Amino acid sequence: MTMETKIVSISLDSRSYDIYIGSALLFRIQDFIPQKLEGGSVFIVTDRNVEPYAARVRDMITESKVRICEMMVLPPGEKTKSFSQVEKLCGWMLEKGLQRDSLVLAIGGGVIGDLAGFCASIAMRGVSYIQVPTTLLSQVDSSVGGKTGISTAQGKNLVGSFYQPKAVIADLDVLKTLPRRELLAGYAEIVKYGLIQDAGFFRWLEQNGSRVCALDEDALAYAIDVSCRAKAVVVQSDEREGGRRALLNFGHTFGHALEAAAGYGSTLLHGEAVALGMVMAFDLSHRMGLCPHDVVERVEAHLTSIGLPIRATMIDGLGVSVQRLIDIMQHDKKALAGKMVFVLANAIGEAFISGDVPEDLVRDVLRDSLGGEIKEAKGKWTSVFSSRS
Amino acid sequence: MTMETKIVSISLDSRSYDIYIGSALLFRIQDFIPQKLEGGSVFIVTDRNVEPYAARVRDMITESKVRICEMMVLPPGEKTKSFSQVEKLCGWMLEKGLQRDSLVLAIGGGVIGDLAGFCASIAMRGVSYIQVPTTLLSQVDSSVGGKTGISTAQGKNLVGSFYQPKAVIADLDVLKTLPRRELLAGYAEIVKYGLIQDAGFFRWLEQNGSRVCALDEDALAYAIDVSCRAKAVVVQSDEREGGRRALLNFGHTFGHALEAAAGYGSTLLHGEAVALGMVMAFDLSHRMGLCPHDVVERVEAHLTSIGLPIRATMIDGLGVSVQRLIDIMQHDKKALAGKMVFVLANAIGEAFISGDVPEDLVRDVLRDSLGGEIKEAKGKWTSVFSSRS
Repeated sequence: MTMETKIVSISLDSRSYDIYIGSALLFRIQDFIPQKLEGGSVFIVTDRNVEPYAARVRDMITESKVRICEMMVLPPGEKTKSFSQVEKLCGWMLEKGLQRDSLVLAIGGGVIGDLAGFCASIAMRGVSYIQVPTTLLSQVDSSVGGKTGISTAQGKNLVGSFYQPKAVIADLDVLKTLPRRELLAGYAEIVKYGLIQDAGFFRWLEQNGSRVCALDEDALAYAIDVSCRAKAVVVQSDEREGGRRALLNFGHTFGHALEAAAGYGSTLLHGEAVALGMVMAFDLSHRMGLCPHDVVERVEAHLTSIGLPIRATMIDGLGVSVQRLIDIMQHDKKALAGKMVFVLANAIGEAFISGDVPEDLVRDVLRDSLGGEIKEAKGKWTSVFSSRS
Repeated sequence: MTMETKIVSISLDSRSYDIYIGSALLFRIQDFIPQKLEGGSVFIVTDRNVEPYAARVRDMITESKVRICEMMVLPPGEKTKSFSQVEKLCGWMLEKGLQRDSLVLAIGGGVIGDLAGFCASIAMRGVSYIQVPTTLLSQVDSSVGGKTGISTAQGKNLVGSFYQPKAVIADLDVLKTLPRRELLAGYAEIVKYGLIQDAGFFRWLEQNGSRVCALDEDALAYAIDVSCRAKAVVVQSDEREGGRRALLNFGHTFGHALEAAAGYGSTLLHGEAVALGMVMAFDLSHRMGLCPHDVVERVEAHLTSIGLPIRATMIDGLGVSVQRLIDIMQHDKKALAGKMVFVLANAIGEAFISGDVPEDLVRDVLRDSLGGEIKEAKGKWTSVFSSRS
C-alpha cells in the first residue's frame, strides 16, 4: 500500500506553489508539474550522487513528447555553487535552446537546488523551475522559501535571488540511499522548527525522532510535512527576510561561523553546525538569564540521542579560536553595521530575534563549546575562507 | 533661471519609484535619494566616459557622512555587460563591505545601468540601487522598467533580472557632452513611443524634433517626460513582459538582428538599428496590407530630417545576408517555439503584436533594406556573435 501524498501549499500571490511529500513520487513526476510538457523544453540539473534518479526522470519526461530534454550532471559539493558554474549552466541552457517557456528541473540537494534555482531566475530574466530535493536537509529547508544562491570568495550565499519554484517534489524513497551522517544533519533542521516555535512538535520528536531517522515512512512524512508547513508560515509572512523570517536562522549565527571555519567540507556538515549552534543559542539564552539550564540539557539530550554533536570539541579536524569565530560572525551578511544578530529563546518553542547580546557572553559560550580558547585540530587541518574560489 | 524638475512616478506596489527629469540635478543628488545616506554605504559604478560626473557625485556623497563610499570605473562599451564583470563587481562590493542596506549608484548609459542593476539585484539577494542615466537612450528607455542584464556568447541580454531602482535621476546637462551620433540614436527610441501609441506625440516630434536634438531644454525635457510616461504606462500594466510590454519592442525584432549581425559595436548603434527596424516594421505592415505606403514615407521623412538612417544600405561596414538575419530572428529570445514575433502597425500610433507574419514578406523587407540578398561590407568587416566573449 502506498501512503497518501501530502501537499503543503505556499501562498505568495502569483508566486504560489505546492510541495508534494510522499513515496514513489518520481515514478509519476508528470502529475506534479503544473505546466504542459508536450512540445516544451526541459533542462535537468543534477549531480553525480543522484544521477540514477535524474536519469530515470529524464527518461519519463522524454516519453511526454517534449521538444527538448537535456541533462547536466555537475560535481557534488559546495564548490559547485560558484560564478563559473552559473556561467557554464546558463550558457549550456541557452546553447541548447532555452526559451521563456522552458522548465528547469533541479534534482539534488541544496547545492543543486540553490544553483539551478539561481540560474533559472536569471536566464532570460527568469524561467520556470521545479525542485526535486534529494536530501532530508533540502526537503525540509532549502527547497522551501525561494532562496537561491551561490558563494563567492567573500562567503557563502552572498550572491543570489529570491525566486519561487513552480513546485517542489519531495520523494521519501530517495532518502534510502542518503548517507546516515547526511540524514542526521538534515534532522537537525527539523529539530530547529520545534525549538523556535513549536514545543509540541519538539516533544513529538523526542518520542519519534529515532523512527524518523530510521526512515519509518509515516514518521518521516509527518516530520517533513510539519517542517515545511512551519517554514511556509514564516516565509509567507516575510518573503524577503525583512523581519520574522530571520527566526529561521536560529542556531545559524554560531553555525555559519563554525561552518566557515571548517571550510564547508566534510569536516562539519551544515546540519551538524546547526546542531552545535542551537545548543550554543540555548546556552547563550541561559547565560543571559532568559531560560533555566535544564532547557539547554533537554536540547542536548535529544540531539545526543539521535547521534548529533552538541559540542565543537566533538568535531575532528576543526581547528579554530574563539576570536576567529567572533570575526566571522561580525562579517556575517545578517550583521547590521557590523553588529552581530542572534536568535535567542525564552523556552523551547519560544525563539526571538535580538541584536543586543553581550559579546563577553558570546565568547564564554564559544569557549565552552571549543573546550578552551582554541579548538586544536585533530586529524586533518581544514583551511578556511581564503581557500574557497 | 533653472527649469522645474519633472517627476514621473512608476507605480508598482512596493517597487514603486520616481524618475526625476531636469537640469543641474547632479548638484543636489542627495535630494533625490530616498534613503538616509548618513552612516550608510554607497557603491558607485560608472565608466571612463562619464567618470568626471561620477567623481563629482562621489565627492558630494562623501560629504553626507556616509560610512563607505567606493567607486568602480569600468571600460565603456557592450563588452562590459559580461559574466566576468558581474563576478568582478559583486566581489568588489562584498570585499569593500556591502551590506543589505547598502546603495548601488549606477552613473552611465545603458551598459552601466544594466550591469550595475543586475549586480544590485543579486548581491546579497538584492540591495537598493539608483540609476543616473547619462545618455539620451538610457534616459528614455533602459532606465525605465527595471530590466537589468548582461550578454553571453549566445546573445544580448540573455541573462538578467526584473529589478526596479529606488529612483532614476535624469540630468539634462550631462547630455551636452554626449557625442551627436549617440544623441540621435537615443532620439530614435523617443520616436518609437509616438509610433506605437501616440500619433499626437509623433506630430509634435515632426515639428520639434530638431529642437530636442539641439538640446533645447524645454523641448528635451518634454520629450523625455512623455517618453518615460509612455513606457511607465506599459510597464505598470505588464511588469514582466507577459503581453502588452512587448509593444516596446517595435522595430526591435529587425533591429536586434541587424545589431547582432553588426557585432554590437560602433558600426551600428542600438538606436540606429531601431530606426532601421521601425522603417522595416512599417514597410512590413504596408506589405501585409495594414497601412498605406505614405505612412512608411512619413516615418522615413522624419527620421531622415533628424539625421537617422532608414536603410541598411546606408550603414558602412555592415556585411550581412537576408538569410543570416532570418536565422538570428528565429533565435531571438522573444521568439516562441522558433516562431518570430513582430510588432506591426495599422497606422502611426497604432501598433500591435503579431506572431503571424509570412516569412516571404519579411525576406522582401530585408532584401529591400539591404539593397539585395546581401549587404556588402564596405569599410571594416565587423564580426558577429561568435566573436563576443
